[in-house]
Parts: sequence; C-alpha cells; structure tokens
Amino acid sequence: MKLIDGNAIAESIIEELTKEVSQLLGKKPVIAVVRVGEDPASVSYVRKKQKTAERIGLGSRLHILPEDVSKADLFAQIDALNTDPDVSGILVQAPLPKHIDETETFNRVLPSKDVDGFNTVNIGKLCQEDDSGFVACTPAGIVQLIERSGVNTEGKHVVVLGRSQIVGKPAALLMMRKGVPGNATVTVCHSRTADLASITSQADVLIAAIGRPNFVTGDMVKDGVAVIDVGINRIEDATRKSGYRLVGDVDFEAVSQKASHITPVPGGVGPMTVAMLMYNTVRAFKASHA
Amino acid sequence: MKLIDGNAIAESIIEELTKEVSQLLGKKPVIAVVRVGEDPASVSYVRKKQKTAERIGLGSRLHILPEDVSKADLFAQIDALNTDPDVSGILVQAPLPKHIDETETFNRVLPSKDVDGFNTVNIGKLCQEDDSGFVACTPAGIVQLIERSGVNTEGKHVVVLGRSQIVGKPAALLMMRKGVPGNATVTVCHSRTADLASITSQADVLIAAIGRPNFVTGDMVKDGVAVIDVGINRIEDATRKSGYRLVGDVDFEAVSQKASHITPVPGGVGPMTVAMLMYNTVRAFKASHA
Repeated sequence: MKLIDGNAIAESIIEELTKEVSQLLGKKPVIAVVRVGEDPASVSYVRKKQKTAERIGLGSRLHILPEDVSKADLFAQIDALNTDPDVSGILVQAPLPKHIDETETFNRVLPSKDVDGFNTVNIGKLCQEDDSGFVACTPAGIVQLIERSGVNTEGKHVVVLGRSQIVGKPAALLMMRKGVPGNATVTVCHSRTADLASITSQADVLIAAIGRPNFVTGDMVKDGVAVIDVGINRIEDATRKSGYRLVGDVDFEAVSQKASHITPVPGGVGPMTVAMLMYNTVRAFKASHA
Repeated sequence: MKLIDGNAIAESIIEELTKEVSQLLGKKPVIAVVRVGEDPASVSYVRKKQKTAERIGLGSRLHILPEDVSKADLFAQIDALNTDPDVSGILVQAPLPKHIDETETFNRVLPSKDVDGFNTVNIGKLCQEDDSGFVACTPAGIVQLIERSGVNTEGKHVVVLGRSQIVGKPAALLMMRKGVPGNATVTVCHSRTADLASITSQADVLIAAIGRPNFVTGDMVKDGVAVIDVGINRIEDATRKSGYRLVGDVDFEAVSQKASHITPVPGGVGPMTVAMLMYNTVRAFKASHA
C-alpha cells in the first residue's frame, strides 16, 4: 500500500510555482481575497491562502467587508478587482452571509480571474473540455494527486461517491475527459444509489466525497483499489485535547489493508486546495500576459 | 416490450406548445435561424424546423449567409438578433464552414436566446442544476422520452455509452441530478472502456450515443433494460431504392427481445430534437416576458 501524501505533493507544486514566479520578469501575479465577516474558519483559511501566496512570491490583497455588507457594495468591490489590471485572480471566501446569493456572487467574478473555478462559464468549459477555463481547487487537486502518485485511469473504472457541484460532478467530468489522467469509465453514485457496495466494489479508483465519517468500509472495495478520500469530518474523540478528531469518508484502517494507494485524512486532499488556488492564479497571470 | 414512440411523444409536445402559444395574448415567440451555405442536409433540417415553428404558431425568420461569409459578418448577424427584442430564440445551424469556429459562434448567441443549449453558460448551468438555462435538444429529448414513457430512473443504474459534449455528458448530468427523471446512479462508458459488456449489462436504462451501427448486441444487456438509442447510422441495403437504410447504435432486433422499453431508429430520439427546440423557444419567450 502506498500512502498518497497530500502534504508532500502540495509542497512540490508550491515549490514549482515559487521557481516559476521567481523567473518572471517585471510584475508578479496578484491574488485578491474578499472576506465577508469574521467567521473563524474563514479567517483561518484566508490567512493560510495569503501565507502560501507570500511564500510563492505572489502579491496578495485582502479586502474585508462587514457581515452586513449590501450586495451592491460587495459587487462593487468585485467589479473594482475585475477591472484592476494588477489583479490576476479573485477569491471570494465562502460561506457568504445568507442575504447574499453565492452563485450570483461567484458569477460576478470575471471568468478570466475566477481562480476558484466556481463561475458558470468555467464549469461549462470543464464540461466542454476547454482547457482555457479554471477547474475548482478540490477536483483539480484530486487530479494532481492521481497523476503525481502514478495511478493509471486510462480505461479503468473510476467510481465517484457524491454528486455535488463542487466536487463529485467536476471530478467525474475530469476523469472521463479525453486526456491523462482521464479516459476512464466513470460512475457517479450517491445517497439514492441502490446497492452501493456492488458499485464501489467495482472501482479501480474510488473518489469519496459524500461527507459521512468512515462511510466506505473494507467490504465495499476490491483489492488494489486506489482511494482518494475527499471527506473531512469531525468525530468525537475523548482521548484528544480538543475532544474530536478528523476522519474522512473512508474507514482508513480497513480500506488501507486492501488499497494500492490511499490518501490519509488529514493530509490528503486538504492541503491540495490551497496549492491549486495558487496554481490557478499563476495560470491566470500568464494567460493575461501571453 | 413497449416501443417508445418518438414521433408520438414529439407530436404531443408540439400539440401542447401549439395550445400554449394560441393562448398567448399579444406578441408571439419568434425563432431566428441562421444558415450558412447550402449544405443539403442543413437546408432540409432548417426547413423542418421552420415548418414546425409555423405549425405551433411561432414566428420564424431565416437568415441565409453565403458559405464564404466572414466571421465578422456572421457575428454581426448574431449580434443583431441578440439585441432584437422580437427574437426569442436563435439557432445557428451546424455544421459551419471550416473557417468559422463553432464553439465561438455558439457562444456569441446570448445565453438567454441560446435555444440550442450549446453556449458554455448553458452547459455550466446544466452542471449546476440551474433550471434557468437551456438544455441542448437531444439530451432534453432523451429526458422527455424517459419521463413520458414511464421509465423510472430513481436509484436505478443508467449507463450512457458515449462521452460527447452534445449528448453523452449532458445526458449523464441530467440523469444524476436531483429530480425526476434523475436521481440515478450514472456510468459513462466509451471507446476506451475495458470490458464494456460487463458495464452495459448492469444498465437498468441504457442510453447509446456512440455512433456505431448495431454496436449494442443482445448479449450486452440484461432482461428488462430500457433503451434509448441516439445513434442514426446509414448502412448499405441493396433492397432499398436509396441503397441504404438507417439503423441505431443498438441491434434493435436482438435487444428488443430483452428490453422493457426501447426506441426505434428512425422514429425515436430523432423527432424529439425539433420538438425540444420549439419547447426551448417558447420557454425563452416566457422568461423574457415574465
């Protein structure tokens, strides 16, 4: 069994980007982050993104708007960043307050600066296999984990557990596209699937993104499966100071006995998302300076 | 075995639309068709679309541009239709001459008038399960055939054979979405799939869109499968005056022995595409007059 080390793979990508950015003459890519309110998780995520941007040598800007910001004011901020030629990529940190529609907000970001990949145009481009679009960071990270750990998907059966817009569906579209990784037979299953184990046990590659702790058990997979576990679930653990620990959607202990490759949680898909955000930002810069 | 009669289902939709349009007060929906060149198949398709539009009581306009039209002139025509408040829907008939990029052309049509559903924004909306978009006519027709013939997809295994942007992928996305029909476990397989028969034989519903005559044989499906055959292939037939006949991607004679439901070719998916184009045009009109 080979552990797919998300921290190490993310670190490789960050190092590659750092080298690439150091070789740029003149202006550097800039990522602008818009944060609404003071949600502690959002504050922490945004800080992590800014730190990584700084490490790579990207410029970074932070725009903090109050929790009760009007849609008009938020959109005016986005518009200003859309038209600012120094800004390569824009990230509006989710979740947004309830009075602001997330889809509408993500679509306000210019597709060419939408490094989060949530704009409808970029989702359409993914479906059309148009490489000029940006792929959302989690599915893009999954592709990198598969590619860089040498998992072959060509003609293989990839089973995606979960049909969300931000993980399940884009991951499925990426795995079926003509290319490497890709060219897979892809099955998307979900909460409504009848006899789930009969599907998951066919998987050569299993991408679990269903949001249920330890949901995929050892008897649901076949020997030699490669497993990408997207789930990050808190479960109670009295032995920890915090009172909880993080587990994935996959019962790691049991499934790792049968798997050829498997991502741990934490330390698998998680670290990849920030790396892919930076990757998209450097790409956005290069596309606008080509 | 129940034959899914595409002609009859298309006719029902056309009658429903005719009634709906007759009840509209004031202006009627208008479809504008742009045809480039004199390709005989295109001439025939466009005539069929216009005749159906007239039957329903829609206004129809035909703009014929020469085979050697410049991109600028074609786009100027599209722009004029985009801004014309009387035009509800715009169809640019494919194929276009080689010197004009089809994707760029389809994206020139405003998403809100893109009744063909080929604009990147409408493909993204399909992926996002945003019902304000337009679904391309062939996959939209497949959904209607399934729904109106009483085939249940909830929790069932739908196997889509083919991964094209215009049929396979949108059909897969429609079958996995939350809704009716939908909520299916969906597998997309294609030319690179290993052991294809082991996949197709799991199908409760099989959507064949691979473009190979009589490709799906009786031993590739299980008893009780519902089959939607999207293929329209010419094969030689010396007994016909024309010297050929049309067959689907499915060996109808053998597969119909095992199927619970099956579409014939011709007379299955084919007639649905024009009906769905009209359906989308009426929807576009209503959305712009809501």
